[in-house]
Amino acid sequence: MSFDKIIDRRGTHCVKWDMMEQIYGVPKDEGIAMWVADMDFRPPACVQEAVQAMVDHGIYGYFGDDSKYREAIRWWMETRHSWQIDPAHIFTTHGLVNGTAMCLDAFTEEGDGIVLFTPVYHAFAKVIRAANRQVVECELARDGDRYVMDFDAYDAQMTGRETMLILCSPHNPGGRVWTRDELEGVAAFAKRHDLIIVSDEIHHDLVFAGHSHIPMAHVDGIADRLVMMTAVTKTFNIAGSHVGNVIIADPAMRERFATRMAALGMSPNSFGLFMATAAYSASGAAWVDDLIPYLEANRRLFDDAVNAIPGLHSMPLESTYLAWVDFSGTGMEMAEFTRRVEQDAKIAVNHGPTFGKGGESFLRFNIATPRAVVEDAVGRLNTAFSDLQ
Amino acid sequence: MSFDKIIDRRGTHCVKWDMMEQIYGVPKDEGIAMWVADMDFRPPACVQEAVQAMVDHGIYGYFGDDSKYREAIRWWMETRHSWQIDPAHIFTTHGLVNGTAMCLDAFTEEGDGIVLFTPVYHAFAKVIRAANRQVVECELARDGDRYVMDFDAYDAQMTGRETMLILCSPHNPGGRVWTRDELEGVAAFAKRHDLIIVSDEIHHDLVFAGHSHIPMAHVDGIADRLVMMTAVTKTFNIAGSHVGNVIIADPAMRERFATRMAALGMSPNSFGLFMATAAYSASGAAWVDDLIPYLEANRRLFDDAVNAIPGLHSMPLESTYLAWVDFSGTGMEMAEFTRRVEQDAKIAVNHGPTFGKGGESFLRFNIATPRAVVEDAVGRLNTAFSDLQ
Ligand SMILES: Cc1ncc(COP(=O)(O)O)c(C=O)c1O
Ligand SMILES: Cc1ncc(COP(=O)(O)O)c(C=O)c1O
Repeated sequence: MSFDKIIDRRGTHCVKWDMMEQIYGVPKDEGIAMWVADMDFRPPACVQEAVQAMVDHGIYGYFGDDSKYREAIRWWMETRHSWQIDPAHIFTTHGLVNGTAMCLDAFTEEGDGIVLFTPVYHAFAKVIRAANRQVVECELARDGDRYVMDFDAYDAQMTGRETMLILCSPHNPGGRVWTRDELEGVAAFAKRHDLIIVSDEIHHDLVFAGHSHIPMAHVDGIADRLVMMTAVTKTFNIAGSHVGNVIIADPAMRERFATRMAALGMSPNSFGLFMATAAYSASGAAWVDDLIPYLEANRRLFDDAVNAIPGLHSMPLESTYLAWVDFSGTGMEMAEFTRRVEQDAKIAVNHGPTFGKGGESFLRFNIATPRAVVEDAVGRLNTAFSDLQ
Repeated sequence: MSFDKIIDRRGTHCVKWDMMEQIYGVPKDEGIAMWVADMDFRPPACVQEAVQAMVDHGIYGYFGDDSKYREAIRWWMETRHSWQIDPAHIFTTHGLVNGTAMCLDAFTEEGDGIVLFTPVYHAFAKVIRAANRQVVECELARDGDRYVMDFDAYDAQMTGRETMLILCSPHNPGGRVWTRDELEGVAAFAKRHDLIIVSDEIHHDLVFAGHSHIPMAHVDGIADRLVMMTAVTKTFNIAGSHVGNVIIADPAMRERFATRMAALGMSPNSFGLFMATAAYSASGAAWVDDLIPYLEANRRLFDDAVNAIPGLHSMPLESTYLAWVDFSGTGMEMAEFTRRVEQDAKIAVNHGPTFGKGGESFLRFNIATPRAVVEDAVGRLNTAFSDLQ
């Protein structure tokens, strides 16, 4: 498997390459898609073989015994994250947007305040609003070029109507891997304000050298208010299979969640089950071990080039493949730097303001693509901002 | 494609063959699985090719433009059912159990009465109860060996707390294809009691010669209270892909449903989308045209053999592959005839009582399997009930 191989995704119904023209006006033939958070790589051979085996057998009926699937998840969490889970505590949702929404549905009421540390993954606010809950934006502070939390400020913001906190750990965008101190701060904050904690750890496998991810489940004193969410889809680039792990250790919370899953008639598709079982394995792990340094080298290439352009600053990612670039140093309006990226450089990116408060001067670039594509992109950015040099 | 080909499904995580031992005590090595409603056939080549193309490309990221998928559904409903739909009226749920549950969630409240014509597909009652609604069992009457509706009796049962009626059309079990008169009776009944009608037409493509399915959407005067549900999964035997079509023409109901879909963060997996698009096509249609007479011949073989056993009676199916066999003529207790089927004949079947009132003396046999398997099954039944001959 070479991550350098360029695989044309245009014309395959993928949203990232096929809809950038419609959404951002970036031409499909010449553009580079660096928005949606999926990768331009094939998953490991073990995953490919699992789908091929399904095709070879050819009968796609109702799935039955999922004990191997649950055991694969358990094994992965233990082996990769030193996290012991009981396979019976796993719910399979239709991805983690659905997982987040199910948490809102199960554990909150209309009108409740839901705390987010912004800027953060945009779909959180989307489902919170769609469910008639209130988004409570607690803006991340900055310590140099890293995002940090400012609990004094957040304490002052609380009104008593907040019931849940959705943590993104590691954080998207910005790529912070929260330290134990920070996670303990989150736990204490949640306890002070009696908030349920939904910890979305979908990026937990893509962590760069020098940092180590701590599952929120390893923080003491919050087991009775914690929902853990992880997924095979981000790590292995199989988002289309739409499965996610919602893992709940607390019996009362688990029962409540189970009731809502049953009431909504939710059960997973068999492709996701087979692919996840194959991915959460030793050969899947070996592939991830190769992927991480490749992403890290992409990040270095990207950051070096972008940071050499006066006025642009790419946050140093500790995790994820989602580079978060601050354009405030250019003194340009959002419309102007965005126009240069989209229309001059012809790169489709996510707009900072969609991530909430604090995202105003940013664009998010997805660097999980063959190196040559990243090189092409930084060359284009150089040209588009050449007047600043 | 030969439907005669026996494909061993044991050891493939399918629920039907792999869990019959655990659930019914029917031994995996010698047993015959005739319960769960999926078929032991491969889907048509066009569907196989669609999944193979996904594997060959190998990147399973987020799906984007679904206009071809919607157009395929529109085309199928028009071509096969003379039913004109607007592609914008289609919601993709995670199958129709989820679709039913979403209807309950969107259009009813806790405590509401939900009308079912029983005996009927068991998952309806399951999701109704899981959602804390009340199951209102309106038992089907009999006209000879066909199920018919008795609206006078149902009118007398209504309390004013009923808000929804779930119709199974064609009907599972029993295989009735409801006539226009009957559907108009359902519509009038729903109007008299102000019920929303959810018409589950998942079996609409598998209708035998001499009968023709009428979409509930073709009945006048109920457009403002109607949800139509169909699926590619039953017709093409791809239940594992977990997609279903919920089609709502009424703008207010559609908006309400859309709101709940968004609030629950629901979006479909890409396998289902690709497979459905491939299946709802001319070559998919040709395969269905071959499948129907094969199922019909299975049904004839099964019914002739079963009806030759004194005391057993198989309802004449007008649709579906789910033979519904009445054992009341044997004078045996449920436990006894079930024991003979499961332990002597070693056939796993669905138990009648799970389908609700009226199912007490029945077992349901799935005949969508190679003919040789049906022959084997009827031979075993003959032996198991040989003392009655
Ligand atoms: C933090 C976070 N959560 C959830 C998701 C999406 O999850 P899914 O595809 O499982 O719905 C993403 C995708 O980018 C993400 O970054
Ligand atoms: C009437 C009816 N509705 C729904 C279903 C199941 O639908 P799905 O697999 O899409 O959840 C079945 C399966 O047997 C059925 O008979």
